[in-house]
Amino acid sequence: MAGRCRRLSVGPWGRDLMAAVDAFLLDCDGVLWDGPRAIGGAAEVLRSLKERGKRVFLVSNNCSRSREEVAGKLEAWGLAAGPGQVYTTGRCSALYLRRAFAGPRRPKVYVLGSRALAAELRAAGLWVSGPGEEELPVSRCALDPEVGAVLVGYDERFSFVRLAKACSYLQDPRCHFVATDPDPWHPVSAVAGSKPSNLGDEDKEPRGPLTCTVRPGTGSLTAAVEAASGRKAKVIGKPSRFMFDCINEMEAGTPLDPARTLMIGDRLDTDILFGANCGLRTVLTLTGVSTLQQAHDNLASELPERRRMVPNFYVDSIKDFLPLLAS
Amino acid sequence: MAGRCRRLSVGPWGRDLMAAVDAFLLDCDGVLWDGPRAIGGAAEVLRSLKERGKRVFLVSNNCSRSREEVAGKLEAWGLAAGPGQVYTTGRCSALYLRRAFAGPRRPKVYVLGSRALAAELRAAGLWVSGPGEEELPVSRCALDPEVGAVLVGYDERFSFVRLAKACSYLQDPRCHFVATDPDPWHPVSAVAGSKPSNLGDEDKEPRGPLTCTVRPGTGSLTAAVEAASGRKAKVIGKPSRFMFDCINEMEAGTPLDPARTLMIGDRLDTDILFGANCGLRTVLTLTGVSTLQQAHDNLASELPERRRMVPNFYVDSIKDFLPLLAS
Repeated sequence: MAGRCRRLSVGPWGRDLMAAVDAFLLDCDGVLWDGPRAIGGAAEVLRSLKERGKRVFLVSNNCSRSREEVAGKLEAWGLAAGPGQVYTTGRCSALYLRRAFAGPRRPKVYVLGSRALAAELRAAGLWVSGPGEEELPVSRCALDPEVGAVLVGYDERFSFVRLAKACSYLQDPRCHFVATDPDPWHPVSAVAGSKPSNLGDEDKEPRGPLTCTVRPGTGSLTAAVEAASGRKAKVIGKPSRFMFDCINEMEAGTPLDPARTLMIGDRLDTDILFGANCGLRTVLTLTGVSTLQQAHDNLASELPERRRMVPNFYVDSIKDFLPLLAS
Repeated sequence: MAGRCRRLSVGPWGRDLMAAVDAFLLDCDGVLWDGPRAIGGAAEVLRSLKERGKRVFLVSNNCSRSREEVAGKLEAWGLAAGPGQVYTTGRCSALYLRRAFAGPRRPKVYVLGSRALAAELRAAGLWVSGPGEEELPVSRCALDPEVGAVLVGYDERFSFVRLAKACSYLQDPRCHFVATDPDPWHPVSAVAGSKPSNLGDEDKEPRGPLTCTVRPGTGSLTAAVEAASGRKAKVIGKPSRFMFDCINEMEAGTPLDPARTLMIGDRLDTDILFGANCGLRTVLTLTGVSTLQQAHDNLASELPERRRMVPNFYVDSIKDFLPLLAS
């Protein structure tokens, strides 16, 4: 069922929708926060959902923040969410790899990614190789014979040597090849500690010298590894439905009913397509990457793959849910 | 005209071929040398071609060696080739960019590549941006407002920050995006200073700890930049016919006749396809990347694009030309 991209507002549609769904899946970056800052109303909406007995899960393609960190942010908002409700690609990659290493011997994972990603794997009982001798020239860089998987994530320490090591491990066809998410790039604002970018004009700080306007995403780093190894990665994050299956595996007693679940996100190519892939209703929020124009362009397109990237509804911001939930 | 992949040997075919061609285009890595070592007979073949009045051009996708360096190697073999006969992707990229910057203002080129590549651009009168502040975190890395082109080559100093800078420059649709070559990876032996790999068993040195078995090529780094920028690079090197056009532009007085030109290379997907794209006869030499089996597989394939990657002839090594030239 393709979406029609209607504005979600107080009125019959909005009321019916709030009554018809009992589970909310929310993306984080661009939905609840913009870089390090909370988006206005996000805490209130989450509190209101909880008060109304709705189930809430955070589903994030960002593998640089640990679940604990995300849960900590929620706690600071007065929400005792607990890390169990937070599904990052780091957590889901660990679940995937534990299943992939089915035998008694559990090989090591070579991680191109943040320390938080490595910590998530270790917390799941996996062995991580490295950080190794990445400062050495590539000709003297030793490989770890126990590596049985390469996991590519968002990696600000990505380098030629790391790429060479990943591709060398992947020469062995038994070596698993997993990527946390397909995001090709990120606006600078989505990366913690960087300057905000896509806020309204009144929020813009005066600019110093011109700095990088985009950050390469995991999809970009994965493309390099795929080209040099001649292999394709298994991609964990949205829009693949793997993360939805992870939630239902963890919530085995009370799995989510797709017909009664709403996905809220800021990216058409990941969040909204994820919703379509899982049979959920979707809401695009305009505080992140995708624009309303892009959603309308997809709606007008004759290509079926673009029609799948049309949300059922859109809102200017997460805070537009407040009057809906109060009504 | 698709090749038949026949062994080139002394006899009527071989004699006819040597009489029918008066220009030889030779790839370098895997043909004349294997890593830092000369392949046996390479110097003698080049001398013999010169004595017989054949025109010889070296056409290399390797942008890490300067033309002067290649010419110096030939000089050490007693061949006063001169850098004019050497066409590297560095040289041809400089020719391309000089033409692209047609106006009176000549912007800078941001180079992901070796110092030799940057030197080649400077020698052609181009301005190169950087090396810059690549050791800083990405959030503090300044962009150079004068950059008007990004050139991606083989870059052992490739990093997340370099990738972020390249993609940020490419946000401006006027910024040119050029890649020296499409090679996705290289065997370790092809990189100067590294251990030999694909030689006969008798040449193998005892191995120390396991080290990287492949090196990412320019095609891998370009894939990362393409994914993060959403743009496609103009690729200079083989199999594009651009380098053939460069030779003919420089040899404007006596351009090469494709019907009387032979291309000798070790890679089906670059050298042999380049020959096919330029209407040349082709010889695969088995001292490099591609195998005879791969050539036969292409010959047996029904896919037209694979049939274009079948050489007319093959030899075990460049030295097999010696008896042909003596006969």
